[in-house]
Amino acid sequence: MYYIGIDVGGTNLKAGLVDENYQLVATKKTPLHFVSMEQMGETLADMALGLLEENGIERSQVASVGMGFPGSVDNRRGVVIKTVNIPIRFMPVAEIFHRRWDVPVYLGNDADCAALGEYYHYGEKLESLILVTLGTGIGTGIILNGKIQSGCNGFGGEGGHIVIVHGGEQCTCGRKGCWERYASASALVRQTKAAMEANPASAMWQVSGGLEQVDGRTVFAAVRAGDAAAKAVLEQYLDYLVEGLANFINIFQPEVIALGGGVSHGLDEELMATLQSKVLELCFGREAERRTKLVKARLGNDAGIIGAALLGVSG
Amino acid sequence: MYYIGIDVGGTNLKAGLVDENYQLVATKKTPLHFVSMEQMGETLADMALGLLEENGIERSQVASVGMGFPGSVDNRRGVVIKTVNIPIRFMPVAEIFHRRWDVPVYLGNDADCAALGEYYHYGEKLESLILVTLGTGIGTGIILNGKIQSGCNGFGGEGGHIVIVHGGEQCTCGRKGCWERYASASALVRQTKAAMEANPASAMWQVSGGLEQVDGRTVFAAVRAGDAAAKAVLEQYLDYLVEGLANFINIFQPEVIALGGGVSHGLDEELMATLQSKVLELCFGREAERRTKLVKARLGNDAGIIGAALLGVSG
Repeated sequence: MYYIGIDVGGTNLKAGLVDENYQLVATKKTPLHFVSMEQMGETLADMALGLLEENGIERSQVASVGMGFPGSVDNRRGVVIKTVNIPIRFMPVAEIFHRRWDVPVYLGNDADCAALGEYYHYGEKLESLILVTLGTGIGTGIILNGKIQSGCNGFGGEGGHIVIVHGGEQCTCGRKGCWERYASASALVRQTKAAMEANPASAMWQVSGGLEQVDGRTVFAAVRAGDAAAKAVLEQYLDYLVEGLANFINIFQPEVIALGGGVSHGLDEELMATLQSKVLELCFGREAERRTKLVKARLGNDAGIIGAALLGVSG
Repeated sequence: MYYIGIDVGGTNLKAGLVDENYQLVATKKTPLHFVSMEQMGETLADMALGLLEENGIERSQVASVGMGFPGSVDNRRGVVIKTVNIPIRFMPVAEIFHRRWDVPVYLGNDADCAALGEYYHYGEKLESLILVTLGTGIGTGIILNGKIQSGCNGFGGEGGHIVIVHGGEQCTCGRKGCWERYASASALVRQTKAAMEANPASAMWQVSGGLEQVDGRTVFAAVRAGDAAAKAVLEQYLDYLVEGLANFINIFQPEVIALGGGVSHGLDEELMATLQSKVLELCFGREAERRTKLVKARLGNDAGIIGAALLGVSG
């Protein structure tokens, strides 16, 4: 039996075939030219059926098709409620898909799908895992008892938008002081640039090649070069990161928090150990036998496809 | 069939008999004189059996005994890990209890039990409810899919200890800027006193009778009397309250958040409507059909007993 996963992005649609060991065995990619919700539903069916044809797989060998959207979904009704970057509003995707192929269809949010992928690929059986993706914003996917938790309306799991600095920086969501304003990859880039402007002699200038070239790796490279200003940036950044992680642990005490996204590539073993001890210090459950383990995400860019496919396993 | 619930407090043990309609039909109370964990386990068995005797109920008519402790528990192993105000560490309460009566025993944290009570008494079937108790601190009990969520080690659901003011007021938990430092009943009392000292002409002085007499109701009474300083205190307090509530909604999008504890008595219909619209304004899911509903908790002091009893229903 196989599971098909489709990761819907603003630019591309990526489909994959996942086997019973949760391994990705084939993929297919196509640019998204959005015309209408109707046409997009057709394209999704084309992709899934094309993936079968290309790999010589029968429809009967597929248990389910899962799709991850950059927005909120109503899985029970098979409807995508709203997406970011694609003009989808209340798209009855399961219904459209079923005109072409009557297979069980599951819908999920893309960050939630990625978390589900990490959950099944952790290597040992878990009860709970939270994936925190440090990218343009902070995405969080919450898996409890093997199920995605996205609330009563599919809008849950927006962990980047918990306020940690009351009255702080304006966030795109309308609130002030959201975690992602301080601990996303974009925030780290802003913090790096500000420190460079304040420290003309910092190694961050050489490492990056200039303000325009700064990215999430700049500060990590400059710290390795022994730069004091970079160290201060990183320390402050990690403080903000820890603040949100500790909030999550005090609420959930999950077995695992996996860190993904651009910034996570900069986190070497030493920094992960620092993060782990900082959060344990701050959180409830210091005396507990079982504590939340911080790890780096394992699946990278395929997490979305694999996780979408595994929506059918999670149910 | 009946369910027995025991609410373990630092001063009293309260036991209750709950029927199949989740109604409390009899109670029993005894002061807690803690000598040893062994003796306390015996007392708990005495209370449960005494409750049966006093009400002419047979052991065979009882489905389960649930106990709520002010601390963390390992329900699977039947062990209380640690409590506040009672010197319990790793108490095998199920084992001790079973020497006297071999009935299924369930353990829970007291705030979680109260949330479970509110969940079953909501009046309609829910998937998710979070109880936020605004008292000395802020307690939160999280019910998802009808089950208490207390994490991998029983220490979860400490929602009062999410930092909303980075680097803010020192909290007893070791962190700085926890929600309960700003939005608990104790915080409101501190904020009221500070405003009184700054405003010698405020009606808060008459209403309370002086700094020593200030409680969580003072500010509400002074606002009703039209006092401007009290209005400012309340507005600021509600801002802090909303900040944490909005964090919870962005994470969970629960069907219901119930507000309990001392402060909730001051929240009349108008203030509840204000709170509801403030949080909806701030949160994700503005366009969703289903939104989190803010309500006042219904069960008051009996929530702990009823919820402990219903641990056996929730399973």
